[in-house]
Amino acid sequence: MLNPKNKRIFLDYASVTPVVEEVLEVMQKCARENFANPSALYEEGRESKEVMKSARQKITDSLKCRPQEIIFTSGGTESDNLAVLGVFQSAKNSGLVSPHIITTQIEHPAVLEACRQTERWGGEVTYLPVSEDGLVSVKDVENALKENTVLVSVMMANNEIGTIEPIAEIGRLIKKWREKKSSNFPYFHTDACQAVLYQDIDVRRLGVDFLTLDGIKMYGPRGIGILYQKFNVPLSQMLYGGGQERGLRSGTENLPAIVGLSKAFEIADSLREKESVRLSEIRGYAFAEILSAFPNAKINGSTEERLPNNINACFPGVDSEFLVVALDVEGIALSYSSTCRTLKEDSSSYVISALGRENCATSSLRITLGRQSTKGDIDSLVKALKKVLNLV
Amino acid sequence: MLNPKNKRIFLDYASVTPVVEEVLEVMQKCARENFANPSALYEEGRESKEVMKSARQKITDSLKCRPQEIIFTSGGTESDNLAVLGVFQSAKNSGLVSPHIITTQIEHPAVLEACRQTERWGGEVTYLPVSEDGLVSVKDVENALKENTVLVSVMMANNEIGTIEPIAEIGRLIKKWREKKSSNFPYFHTDACQAVLYQDIDVRRLGVDFLTLDGIKMYGPRGIGILYQKFNVPLSQMLYGGGQERGLRSGTENLPAIVGLSKAFEIADSLREKESVRLSEIRGYAFAEILSAFPNAKINGSTEERLPNNINACFPGVDSEFLVVALDVEGIALSYSSTCRTLKEDSSSYVISALGRENCATSSLRITLGRQSTKGDIDSLVKALKKVLNLV
Repeated sequence: MLNPKNKRIFLDYASVTPVVEEVLEVMQKCARENFANPSALYEEGRESKEVMKSARQKITDSLKCRPQEIIFTSGGTESDNLAVLGVFQSAKNSGLVSPHIITTQIEHPAVLEACRQTERWGGEVTYLPVSEDGLVSVKDVENALKENTVLVSVMMANNEIGTIEPIAEIGRLIKKWREKKSSNFPYFHTDACQAVLYQDIDVRRLGVDFLTLDGIKMYGPRGIGILYQKFNVPLSQMLYGGGQERGLRSGTENLPAIVGLSKAFEIADSLREKESVRLSEIRGYAFAEILSAFPNAKINGSTEERLPNNINACFPGVDSEFLVVALDVEGIALSYSSTCRTLKEDSSSYVISALGRENCATSSLRITLGRQSTKGDIDSLVKALKKVLNLV
Repeated sequence: MLNPKNKRIFLDYASVTPVVEEVLEVMQKCARENFANPSALYEEGRESKEVMKSARQKITDSLKCRPQEIIFTSGGTESDNLAVLGVFQSAKNSGLVSPHIITTQIEHPAVLEACRQTERWGGEVTYLPVSEDGLVSVKDVENALKENTVLVSVMMANNEIGTIEPIAEIGRLIKKWREKKSSNFPYFHTDACQAVLYQDIDVRRLGVDFLTLDGIKMYGPRGIGILYQKFNVPLSQMLYGGGQERGLRSGTENLPAIVGLSKAFEIADSLREKESVRLSEIRGYAFAEILSAFPNAKINGSTEERLPNNINACFPGVDSEFLVVALDVEGIALSYSSTCRTLKEDSSSYVISALGRENCATSSLRITLGRQSTKGDIDSLVKALKKVLNLV
């Protein structure tokens, strides 16, 4: 059950996905039956440990990694922060004076703000531009690599415009560079929070050392995320204490959420292909309907290298915030940029600015589809848009 | 329902408390009905925001604070870390070269390890000893205060031996010192994770600037904690991103857990007095039974200034880990020190060492009571202890 008010249409799945009923059920069961601390020595503790082990093992099926390469965190923000700040601090601790990080101008604030923090700590950051299609160029990454580059962080798919970045290609480039330089650096991180429902996240194929995921973006529990950390890649901890998660993330493990996340992975894996096909079709329909109904409208970001659930359209001259508020009245829930941005009380999108479309940065809508979305939702959206834009 | 295997006896409530059924229910309801991001501008988002606001408001009833003084975190470890590292970094940023922190030798690892981290960052830490009763002396705190002291962190009640520290007295001392020196420093933090079920946590009465709580220790959800931060007291963030929690804790809010925690507070408030009386009586019974059955046994820590649910007994010459494992076989679940310590694969307790009882550090049992505990559990425990110690 997605929306209790079934007259409303939810088109903001990039912000949040509802928790699947099956996930809620396994979480309840776990909270009732396995409440003991997984570090406890007695029977109930050992059982909790087994439950955690089995949930971790199941998740390795999706990531194609080893169980000890998964760090459970409190969510995507913590995972991104841990990758960026953890690699930076570890490099500093190993004697590097001013470690250099390469990232892009369209990353999620959890990466961008962590990068800015490394600058305050004496680091150096290159924020790569993207093409007008919202794609980072592998050549640009190559040109930005330096002797002191310790990390490249490029998101797998953008949270506002859904563009899919060339992660595997960048992975190969970095591998070559490291071989040529006989260096362990740079490590490669990707935020795959938006991509996981539609893209293959095999970490070996992608060639990444770190990968971020979040339950909230994959119909899973809130307050739980993952940082995949390649075996033997050094990382400094950010949370200090009891030494859980191999000393990299202290704090008693959130077992019900871990079990729920494992179930969310299982469901995501089983639906990935089918949903990608189904939503691609709805997306194509939406592009056509929007462009035909509003001839001035433009789609932001590549329409090819793009998540099947993402539609981001510019309505030149119309204020994004007005559109969101007016559509809300018409029963449609969506955003003008990433939800996190609304906290800054800044209705302009830095992602769309980075496409070179300054005039669209305050005139665009992010329409994101999910498991409950239908073509009918697009019809309702277009109808409502016509109404609020006084075209009917 | 505490324990599905009703033949087993759980005496490790200081490690973890089961989630109350009512808490699970409000969490389920919230996950189903309020899945939207509280930062979203549309109706569902505004409703989530209202739900969060109301949960936050309810929690202020227990803490006697303002809503904007509550920071939701992922748990006690993060809250402790945020207080210690956040105050330290904020002081450094304001120009202090080597900020000084005062804490005790018996704090939880989440405080101790964070303090050690500040030493690696150029800070200075005083780890105060405690009396043989496990109590910190207010005079010792006073003598340790220096011009560069930025934080005093003393736990409200110890997680291993249950001793209740003189927080309100230390609060008054610090207030006087600040007035005398016309300084904002030092701030005062207390970890109240173990105390909240039995002690009044009115932050004004305690005179604290920061206070840590964790759902897992109060029959609430996992993966959620609180850091109370007194209004206007400066703090550096540890998680960078979307700017949630007034910029102090980025990451989408874990709404079901926040709502569940609020319910856990409500229940804790309603049971505090009654459970304190009931468990004090069982604790007194346990002290008497243990000391009479095992004349060599000693109680670790003050028997007066002590949480009603804590029994920590030394059995000289007997290995703690052996006891825990043997009692487990007899159907009794308890710990030898804090659960976090077992991760270090070190069966010695630094808390009991700090009492000057080196020989008890590896020969003690932590027996902690909770809502399901009865006198009959103590009878079973004593009987099992006699069996494993070959006294029958």
